[in-house]
Amino acid sequence: MTAPSGPTLVAGGAGFIGSHLCRALLEAGGQVVCLDNLQTARASNLLALERHAGFTFVHGDVTQPLPEAITARAPGFARIYNLACAASPDLYQADPEHTMLTNVVGTVQLLRLAEQTGARFLLTSTSEVYGEPEIHPQPEHYRGHVSCTGPRACYDEGKRAAETLAFDFARRGRADVRVARIFNTYGPQMRLDDGRVVSNLICQALSGEPLTIYGDGSQTRSFCYVADTVDGLIRLMECEGIDPQPVNIGNQQEITINELVEVLSSLGTAPLDIVHRPLPMDDPQRRRPDISRARAVLGWEPLTPLREGLAMTCEWFAGELRSNGLPVTTGARAAPGRRRVAAGGA
Amino acid sequence: MTAPSGPTLVAGGAGFIGSHLCRALLEAGGQVVCLDNLQTARASNLLALERHAGFTFVHGDVTQPLPEAITARAPGFARIYNLACAASPDLYQADPEHTMLTNVVGTVQLLRLAEQTGARFLLTSTSEVYGEPEIHPQPEHYRGHVSCTGPRACYDEGKRAAETLAFDFARRGRADVRVARIFNTYGPQMRLDDGRVVSNLICQALSGEPLTIYGDGSQTRSFCYVADTVDGLIRLMECEGIDPQPVNIGNQQEITINELVEVLSSLGTAPLDIVHRPLPMDDPQRRRPDISRARAVLGWEPLTPLREGLAMTCEWFAGELRSNGLPVTTGARAAPGRRRVAAGGA
Repeated sequence: MTAPSGPTLVAGGAGFIGSHLCRALLEAGGQVVCLDNLQTARASNLLALERHAGFTFVHGDVTQPLPEAITARAPGFARIYNLACAASPDLYQADPEHTMLTNVVGTVQLLRLAEQTGARFLLTSTSEVYGEPEIHPQPEHYRGHVSCTGPRACYDEGKRAAETLAFDFARRGRADVRVARIFNTYGPQMRLDDGRVVSNLICQALSGEPLTIYGDGSQTRSFCYVADTVDGLIRLMECEGIDPQPVNIGNQQEITINELVEVLSSLGTAPLDIVHRPLPMDDPQRRRPDISRARAVLGWEPLTPLREGLAMTCEWFAGELRSNGLPVTTGARAAPGRRRVAAGGA
Repeated sequence: MTAPSGPTLVAGGAGFIGSHLCRALLEAGGQVVCLDNLQTARASNLLALERHAGFTFVHGDVTQPLPEAITARAPGFARIYNLACAASPDLYQADPEHTMLTNVVGTVQLLRLAEQTGARFLLTSTSEVYGEPEIHPQPEHYRGHVSCTGPRACYDEGKRAAETLAFDFARRGRADVRVARIFNTYGPQMRLDDGRVVSNLICQALSGEPLTIYGDGSQTRSFCYVADTVDGLIRLMECEGIDPQPVNIGNQQEITINELVEVLSSLGTAPLDIVHRPLPMDDPQRRRPDISRARAVLGWEPLTPLREGLAMTCEWFAGELRSNGLPVTTGARAAPGRRRVAAGGA
């Protein structure tokens, strides 16, 4: 990638994927302005970024009028990435009104900024726009199967509405718009309390706690290593002359939660017990991207094998737990006949 | 209906359904405060309402901070109806960003007002949340088939997001919320340039112009007379102890556009020519409500036969055209072998 001619604004740049994106842009020689409300950001993500001379942090919430530190330098922006929104169900459901407004008001403000400045705009949407899909894998033209009245809707419908705004700006020539639909992504710098399956299981495994499996563990996910996701986002942003259509960014390798547990066990960190709990409401049973479009248009596909990505993630989580003064159980290989503990009505 | 103990706020009360709702509430002895930006309102709707002593008009746009005339009297509101949004594709697509924000920012502001004041809140959602449905008729639990990237999405996804906000407020006990999904409604006080099939065909019929049929006219709609729709809305608002679930309000009688043309012809107003034009993008092929829930919970169903409703509507449109100084062709009964004119690539 060659660095664009002006600085890049990354809204949500202190979050999990956002901080990896900022680092990749900085390492490629770019100037990065990160706008973040620090709702779900990790302070250490920011500290690491602030070592780069090209990095500027601006504290602000995209549901509010944009800070003067952003609007004053707006004419210089060449690229605007919008990653602003809590992405884990526990966190985005904590304040559903704020989640919706982050996606709608936040996106419209950043789109207007792109329109005013001529910056190219990339929205990070989500596989959640497909809801509980009825076809597998999900291509971009699939309209989805989303409950607009349920507890996940603040995020799912918020992202759908954000896409709508982006494509309306594109249709009217108001901005050069890219929309990435990001599927499950994992890796270092996730929050320990992110609440999603990879971080939950790794933390439990490293802490010697029973692993929680929601439902019977036969539901599938497709996990993409964060470096691959970030590579896809940058390729999508820098690709010239692309049709204004959404692009799935994710890993096509579909595994069950039970298989994920097996991989973690084989890394030598899994404890012996498993606790089954009921599936949360509206939790999708399967989710797997069709990445034909990303392959064809961006020449992109994930390169990191799951086992390798999980090993790097476990290593990073172990360091985090230790630096938080927490005990880390390693080398607790799964016994062949490990006990299963039923709990919570599962 | 007995009038609630405080005034009723009707956002969008100067529009088509809104003005009928205001009149019904006033005639039942209520006090009504109408908040409207006059984007699609007809001045004569307002003039007629202003004859009632209990009526107050406040000019304002729900995407902006609510006017002081609203916030100052907010503690008195017993009911808040949100009907604020252009509902015809021509009008809501004219400014898609404003359409989205009307639904999201407007709804959240009115929900907060309901939370602050304890007023009961009713959102008028739409059959458009079902998109181009794959099942017929559509029950409320159907998740819909909506393109979130197309030109209709600003309305469809805006209403879905508004529902999400309403149900999040309900789930957290922040407001007593009702959501009506209104299907096609017609009647007096529609805009002549509303752009939807009933007003288009009636205006063309009365003016002696060729009738425009999009596609081959085999697509179906279900048309509900406005007095029936308003009765459904008031019943839903005043119903005690209802589950916070959406309720379809519409007419189950499904007719093709060709059959609608036949009914209009039989009223003695149809001209001889028909022009076929291509179907607009994302135009649904069928749309018909399952109103089992409205029947069971509200004891409601439409009472006005289509022929009778259309006759009243034609009469009103003829008066409007005449008062605008336009010629009205009446009594032009369809000849058995009327000419068909192909146009626009149909």
